[in-house]
Amino acid sequence: MNTHRFSEPLRGIVPPVVTPLLDTDTLDVAGLERVLEHIIGGGVSGLFMLGTTGEAPHLSHRLRRELVERSCKQAAGRIPVLVGITDTAFVESVELAKHAAECGADAVVLAPPYYLPLGQPEFQEYLDHLITKLPLPLFLYNFPALTKVTIEPETVRRAMDNPRVVGIKDSSGNLIYFKRLTELAKARADWTVLIGPEELLSDAVFAGGHGGVNGGANVFPQLYVALYRAAEAGDLARVRDLQARVLKISSALYTVGRHPSAIIKGIKCALSCMGICGDVMAEPFHHFRENERSRVQQLLLDLAALAKVS
Amino acid sequence: MNTHRFSEPLRGIVPPVVTPLLDTDTLDVAGLERVLEHIIGGGVSGLFMLGTTGEAPHLSHRLRRELVERSCKQAAGRIPVLVGITDTAFVESVELAKHAAECGADAVVLAPPYYLPLGQPEFQEYLDHLITKLPLPLFLYNFPALTKVTIEPETVRRAMDNPRVVGIKDSSGNLIYFKRLTELAKARADWTVLIGPEELLSDAVFAGGHGGVNGGANVFPQLYVALYRAAEAGDLARVRDLQARVLKISSALYTVGRHPSAIIKGIKCALSCMGICGDVMAEPFHHFRENERSRVQQLLLDLAALAKVS
Amino acid sequence: MNTHRFSEPLRGIVPPVVTPLLDTDTLDVAGLERVLEHIIGGGVSGLFMLGTTGEAPHLSHRLRRELVERSCKQAAGRIPVLVGITDTAFVESVELAKHAAECGADAVVLAPPYYLPLGQPEFQEYLDHLITKLPLPLFLYNFPALTKVTIEPETVRRAMDNPRVVGIKDSSGNLIYFKRLTELAKARADWTVLIGPEELLSDAVFAGGHGGVNGGANVFPQLYVALYRAAEAGDLARVRDLQARVLKISSALYTVGRHPSAIIKGIKCALSCMGICGDVMAEPFHHFRENERSRVQQLLLDLAALAKVS
Amino acid sequence: MNTHRFSEPLRGIVPPVVTPLLDTDTLDVAGLERVLEHIIGGGVSGLFMLGTTGEAPHLSHRLRRELVERSCKQAAGRIPVLVGITDTAFVESVELAKHAAECGADAVVLAPPYYLPLGQPEFQEYLDHLITKLPLPLFLYNFPALTKVTIEPETVRRAMDNPRVVGIKDSSGNLIYFKRLTELAKARADWTVLIGPEELLSDAVFAGGHGGVNGGANVFPQLYVALYRAAEAGDLARVRDLQARVLKISSALYTVGRHPSAIIKGIKCALSCMGICGDVMAEPFHHFRENERSRVQQLLLDLAALAKVS
Repeated sequence: MNTHRFSEPLRGIVPPVVTPLLDTDTLDVAGLERVLEHIIGGGVSGLFMLGTTGEAPHLSHRLRRELVERSCKQAAGRIPVLVGITDTAFVESVELAKHAAECGADAVVLAPPYYLPLGQPEFQEYLDHLITKLPLPLFLYNFPALTKVTIEPETVRRAMDNPRVVGIKDSSGNLIYFKRLTELAKARADWTVLIGPEELLSDAVFAGGHGGVNGGANVFPQLYVALYRAAEAGDLARVRDLQARVLKISSALYTVGRHPSAIIKGIKCALSCMGICGDVMAEPFHHFRENERSRVQQLLLDLAALAKVS
Repeated sequence: MNTHRFSEPLRGIVPPVVTPLLDTDTLDVAGLERVLEHIIGGGVSGLFMLGTTGEAPHLSHRLRRELVERSCKQAAGRIPVLVGITDTAFVESVELAKHAAECGADAVVLAPPYYLPLGQPEFQEYLDHLITKLPLPLFLYNFPALTKVTIEPETVRRAMDNPRVVGIKDSSGNLIYFKRLTELAKARADWTVLIGPEELLSDAVFAGGHGGVNGGANVFPQLYVALYRAAEAGDLARVRDLQARVLKISSALYTVGRHPSAIIKGIKCALSCMGICGDVMAEPFHHFRENERSRVQQLLLDLAALAKVS
Repeated sequence: MNTHRFSEPLRGIVPPVVTPLLDTDTLDVAGLERVLEHIIGGGVSGLFMLGTTGEAPHLSHRLRRELVERSCKQAAGRIPVLVGITDTAFVESVELAKHAAECGADAVVLAPPYYLPLGQPEFQEYLDHLITKLPLPLFLYNFPALTKVTIEPETVRRAMDNPRVVGIKDSSGNLIYFKRLTELAKARADWTVLIGPEELLSDAVFAGGHGGVNGGANVFPQLYVALYRAAEAGDLARVRDLQARVLKISSALYTVGRHPSAIIKGIKCALSCMGICGDVMAEPFHHFRENERSRVQQLLLDLAALAKVS
Repeated sequence: MNTHRFSEPLRGIVPPVVTPLLDTDTLDVAGLERVLEHIIGGGVSGLFMLGTTGEAPHLSHRLRRELVERSCKQAAGRIPVLVGITDTAFVESVELAKHAAECGADAVVLAPPYYLPLGQPEFQEYLDHLITKLPLPLFLYNFPALTKVTIEPETVRRAMDNPRVVGIKDSSGNLIYFKRLTELAKARADWTVLIGPEELLSDAVFAGGHGGVNGGANVFPQLYVALYRAAEAGDLARVRDLQARVLKISSALYTVGRHPSAIIKGIKCALSCMGICGDVMAEPFHHFRENERSRVQQLLLDLAALAKVS
């Protein structure tokens, strides 16, 4: 069922898909189905399950496996499915990767273990060993604000020697770092570089990146796909228009709450207001209360025109 | 088999026990037996399994359960067993707590989920809900360098309203914060306040704390017990002598490696040199190589006299 | 002698000019003359004296005044001169601003006082009062890594109500923040937004910024001006070429030393190798020793072709 | 007029004296006189002018010199006067040190230049050179939260080779670091180690420190002197009583405001309520408004009994 052989970069929008829940440990199966169809229908290039936006670290291992299975089934080979396997425990990462392979996923995605901060040689050694255990191609995932560790350019360069490692997603928000990644990418024609923060999507593409893993694409997939395409085509005027809209969405929707979790809460709440899936969060987090929810509801009315692309 | 009813503070040394391994997912059963006897024989007041020193986040869930079961069996009610249940996933924390209760553990220990940084109200809400699911008394665990979240004094004060929460371990290294905790403790005669960093053990006791959860007590339990007792007795001269020795041990043994993991590696390596258990680390970490190992070996010779208490 | 009335944005490259020294408190007058001619001859749009690259905080107040006087005289109205007045002491900032006005400077530049971290309302109140004392238009300067304080978008918006504040330079390296600034800029047709890190120059222009205050423009002014113009013209292919060269220069030249001062040391050393001015640093810093210097010398040979623009 | 030859450690309380002001650049001469008599009358062992509590970086150079002159005159050799010379500019530090010597000060105090973060070798080299220019004995001042640089133990050890460097004040709040300093101090019988945070005063003395540079001693000098003496005498019961009072004062008085400046504002406001000097702050800071002031007034009533020592 594999749809992408990673013999060339994965281009376009690969949303970090939310995990619809009925309660802290029950998957919202119908909601997941609707979310995936909503996203796939928007023209995205792949699905990234079990990322930060997918609340992966906060899900039970059982639920993670169920989510992977159902997502792969639903995607049904239409677009590649990438599965986050980041875990503080080596063994759990390997187990999840095997499960993902059995379910028909196309690749796995890995950030450094995130409890005790790893030294760079420690991460390299860990990676070297882990790769030998993985049945699927691997994307690296750089998110130092959460993992306490930057995947240094030299570590990326080393990893590129291994053909089983096929790309990197960068959520550092540091475009200078990202540019170093695109410099490195010139050494491998099949290597993918994707950016996390949607506010930097067009900049990333201009800098030689291949696309974005943008949370807002859960809500408005067409808009993000259109922005990606405009950037890819070098259509500066259209990029300015669309990127400004994305910026407006993110500065409105992601700041309704006060804590770092507000981004995920905002996305789930918006999807809930749109009738796509519920807004239940995995604990330790809780969904927006009535007050925040009505602000999101109002925002969606304001943003509707922004999100519409011709 | 419960040995402590927490109707009064838990006083003394409660080492954060290392997890002896044969490989990344195989418990060193005989090593664990020897470690526990070594520690219990040193006069400690309790065992803290699955803490940071126990590499808990890096162990598979299966191995965590096995470790808890065997530790409780081995302790056999001689001293209380505390079990770390910190996890990014609510469900996994609850499951582990239930397992700990079934194995006969005396209490559980919980730090905030450590991936996305929690706002304080988010942690409070999480805690309020989690407590209702726990079959055992709960100790809080403050370690902001690793969890990104400080358990604020006001949150501690709120938690003290619940009799199922019986104390706190503080590994912040911030003695001013610790003193705020001992101020708060005056409101509950049964409330325990323990300190993590062994370099501050006597200061913590002078400030009204009840003891320490000190990694070095894996190696030299008698020394730490003696230091605790001297501080408890207000024997300043003896405290100065013993605390200076502990300082020498920590500045020597914990700085053989370069990364934050060096503390755990140093402890395990020392235990290995002493023939008590092996030095295998759970991945992503690796044991000291020959070079570091021989430095530890040499250090142990130098420190032997320091560690001897009369 | 004022050359710019700031009735429209200041567009292009405004290098943060190095301060050539004979020793820690003696200005290299001839070196300054050559540096300024080198830069002005490169087609830049203005000069920013006494910025971070100019080592302002490390110069005596006497030398700062001398530098301002000589720079204004040398510029002779050909391009506007901006003078950094950032200081921890209110009084010293005001005095320097008055001196700058007397010397014929065109504007002053101010970052928040940088010892005790200011709360945002504290900075706003400070700014409101300071502005009333300034004889020249003011640019804000955001550099949170050094001042510990981000000038929050809301603070910028408030400052824009005052017509005496005419723009902002952002050295945060955070392009998302920069984009918020260009959003705000739409409210005032005369408002300038400039970017610090040269690695982000084209991105900043695409995002609606007006140019760059880039350290590397001390060395290769033509290259930075050409990159700015290509970005302004929307010439994506040329931007890719030139921005990649700038990236190569910065990753080579600014990493010869190990400490944050390495950027300034690298620039001064390059200018010294080129015979334009000496490489003496104001204490607490010292110039590169022989080892680093020969690496810079070699780099300049490698980079010469890169820096040539047609 | 020099009162201390630093042939033995400076023991006891050396308050970081506030700078009474009439406005941002006018010294409150009468207020300064009263503050100094209030403090000296409380039994302190020295005066530290132009520290962080003295708002040194925020004062004009002219006012700094005036303050030093008047303070030395007022102290009149009764107790030693230490003068902070920390500055980002080497030349200004040297000038101020010379002025301090001319005024009859006993020593100078220096933290690392605090704009661009210094590498440790850079600070060492700077220090080596600066020492040769200083006409007075030097105390180091470690305050990494404000200077971005920790004076590493190895740097302290190197500095101890120079007999002109006579001690260190540590405001890191990190008692483990402080203990390393007292370990080092054993190598020189005349070397002084003082602690900044008053919440750790007794702990510091138990650990071998010689006293405290505590802001609260501006307000209640007797209490801090009594606490120091109790700790020095090893009177644990009295230490517990007095240290708890100091903790109550600091947690009440220093948290009336929200920003880091709140500590200084609280001290000045308390002195103002007590009629000793006004509460004017040097800009960028402003004194407490009516609301905070009445809270301080109320606090002083509550704390009066606490501050009384028998």
